[in-house]
Amino acid sequence: MATLPECETLKLEQSGSILHLTLNRPDSRNAMSLAMVHELRSVFAAIRDDTGVRAVVLRGTGGHFCAGGDVKDMASARGQKAEDGSDPIFELNRAFGHLLSEAESAPQTTVAVLEGVVMGGGFGLACVSDVALCLESAKFGLPETTLGITPAQIAPFVVRRIGLTQARRLALTGHRFDGSEAFWLGVVHDFAKSGEELDQKLEQLLERIRHCAPHASRMTKELLLSVESEPLDALLDKAARDFAGAVRGDEGQEGTTAFMQKRKPSWAEE
Amino acid sequence: MATLPECETLKLEQSGSILHLTLNRPDSRNAMSLAMVHELRSVFAAIRDDTGVRAVVLRGTGGHFCAGGDVKDMASARGQKAEDGSDPIFELNRAFGHLLSEAESAPQTTVAVLEGVVMGGGFGLACVSDVALCLESAKFGLPETTLGITPAQIAPFVVRRIGLTQARRLALTGHRFDGSEAFWLGVVHDFAKSGEELDQKLEQLLERIRHCAPHASRMTKELLLSVESEPLDALLDKAARDFAGAVRGDEGQEGTTAFMQKRKPSWAEE
Amino acid sequence: MATLPECETLKLEQSGSILHLTLNRPDSRNAMSLAMVHELRSVFAAIRDDTGVRAVVLRGTGGHFCAGGDVKDMASARGQKAEDGSDPIFELNRAFGHLLSEAESAPQTTVAVLEGVVMGGGFGLACVSDVALCLESAKFGLPETTLGITPAQIAPFVVRRIGLTQARRLALTGHRFDGSEAFWLGVVHDFAKSGEELDQKLEQLLERIRHCAPHASRMTKELLLSVESEPLDALLDKAARDFAGAVRGDEGQEGTTAFMQKRKPSWAEE
Repeated sequence: MATLPECETLKLEQSGSILHLTLNRPDSRNAMSLAMVHELRSVFAAIRDDTGVRAVVLRGTGGHFCAGGDVKDMASARGQKAEDGSDPIFELNRAFGHLLSEAESAPQTTVAVLEGVVMGGGFGLACVSDVALCLESAKFGLPETTLGITPAQIAPFVVRRIGLTQARRLALTGHRFDGSEAFWLGVVHDFAKSGEELDQKLEQLLERIRHCAPHASRMTKELLLSVESEPLDALLDKAARDFAGAVRGDEGQEGTTAFMQKRKPSWAEE
Repeated sequence: MATLPECETLKLEQSGSILHLTLNRPDSRNAMSLAMVHELRSVFAAIRDDTGVRAVVLRGTGGHFCAGGDVKDMASARGQKAEDGSDPIFELNRAFGHLLSEAESAPQTTVAVLEGVVMGGGFGLACVSDVALCLESAKFGLPETTLGITPAQIAPFVVRRIGLTQARRLALTGHRFDGSEAFWLGVVHDFAKSGEELDQKLEQLLERIRHCAPHASRMTKELLLSVESEPLDALLDKAARDFAGAVRGDEGQEGTTAFMQKRKPSWAEE
Repeated sequence: MATLPECETLKLEQSGSILHLTLNRPDSRNAMSLAMVHELRSVFAAIRDDTGVRAVVLRGTGGHFCAGGDVKDMASARGQKAEDGSDPIFELNRAFGHLLSEAESAPQTTVAVLEGVVMGGGFGLACVSDVALCLESAKFGLPETTLGITPAQIAPFVVRRIGLTQARRLALTGHRFDGSEAFWLGVVHDFAKSGEELDQKLEQLLERIRHCAPHASRMTKELLLSVESEPLDALLDKAARDFAGAVRGDEGQEGTTAFMQKRKPSWAEE
């Protein structure tokens, strides 16, 4: 079991190799406070090298995923500057961007389960998951420009998730949409019509993820995330070396043997 | 009101903060002449720093958006070289590419309203809008290779709009398609079955755009367009500084206050 | 007619300007052996400068496209190292990556026709085609991580084909899907419910491809493939020069003349 930080704004529960990470500020629809950003970052840092955690399921309490930044907090922070000259608005915003980068590159397979509001920063957090499921009734949107502000840290992750064509429309019109449109846009990979169906789809998904070898999954995620930044030939050279190592490694031996013996590989039982 | 250039090939009408820009060469289905390219570029240049123009609606007269380059013009230009050695075919083509770059980076929110033919260069122009609506009966396509020529200036903007996978199929097969397929491909964001429905959807869209703060929208568009060319960390640093400025600025104060008071922000009334 | 290499693992048949290239290892569902990779590379090399071949149709015998790497081959190769110190697993994997790069940049318009299993390496090969058609009953997937290995050479081509958002889900869950989902994801451009419908759609597609000028199609494909790697202005400058050359060239003259005369251009009759 991973040694996880104590958290006030999150509920953490590890079940086998799956870490259930739940945003837990129900009074503000899990709006993203500085404390929550810090705690999320510390959890992702704590599990980074922990191969016992193979997947992270991210969701929210109280029927909502996350309302994004808290508008009341923003209004009250307007007049503040810290004594050391730092700017609390800048600091929270930028820390949230670091969280998004770190959550995206988490070696674990990350699953977002989306209900209720998935707005602004919540939308951004959903966009860095490997797989996202939602309720059809969930409400998505980038309302920043309607508030006179910008989707500052979120924008690049939304463009990566759904492309520039759809991102510009969402950000420049404040368009709000439900889970079926989120599926159509590619924000999520599947949606459910009821809470039971959502839980069932999550269970099936976790079963599939458990069927994927832990180390091979980490290598594959790292490979996929580097496609857009690495030159193709260097990427393919390294990938071929890693591939040869994987075929000869424990997982490759167990996986191909299990396939030929028509049985589940050992890691699927965890 | 913006000081707009006199135009022969365009109709210009400003309504509040919205500039209606209509391609007006109905005899040639608004085919893209050199004069029209120059006039479009001069309009986008004239409004660039005019914060009174918040959105541009681009459409065509006579039931068509734009037929692209004029094949007859091309045939007659074939033998011509200007006295100074310049090549009129090269000049028109390259000028059109500059127009596409400039229209894409216009700080205003741009809306394309597409009817009738949306072919070749017309297709390219549609691809640089922030939001595109069309009639289901509109006809889209990249017919260049069937004419023995290439979608030279258009290609990069089509790839950005709908991705390489769909762009290569369209360009290498000359596939023609209607508005529902344009929606499926992501060329447009919505389509209508009748002219009234199209006008109604445009009105609703402009209402939404008016709800977005003018300066925040400009900053957001610039941010989104820079995602694919800027390094992530530098982009997020700058975005966080701009965000802090926006929260403390006039728009941020009005927007968050209006939100808490459950009223429309001032800019939505313009 | 092109001078084509003798092949043991492929069937080659040229019909007019179309090369039909069929993977022919039905006993192993056309799994990708080193011999097959070499032969495919030699065919693409042989036709590269042959303007008599305008399109390549890639399919498989025995009701399957391609099962990817052969798991039994992998298991038996595990203990082997060649006498010269080279690693046969690395060599096969990397050679397959070269094949994917070379097939993607083939100047011909490439068409993949997909039936039965389209898994792993077969999925990768489908992803580099210009146009892909499939049977609804075809089975797609990236099963590598379930076998303890990685989609090493395939990953970048899958990301280019369908985007990072969908690629990461497929690779990290081993999700398998049919032809209608392959269409939804953008792996293929169309799908058919029966073999006859598939053949009919292929024939219509080839008719459309024949309607596109051979040299203009080559230039257009090269242009599209360079969009993501070349700076925009340099790309547009070159494209405008090529465009002017095309308008004045034989194809441009024939294409625009045929258009005005409302007849088929000469190349459509080949």
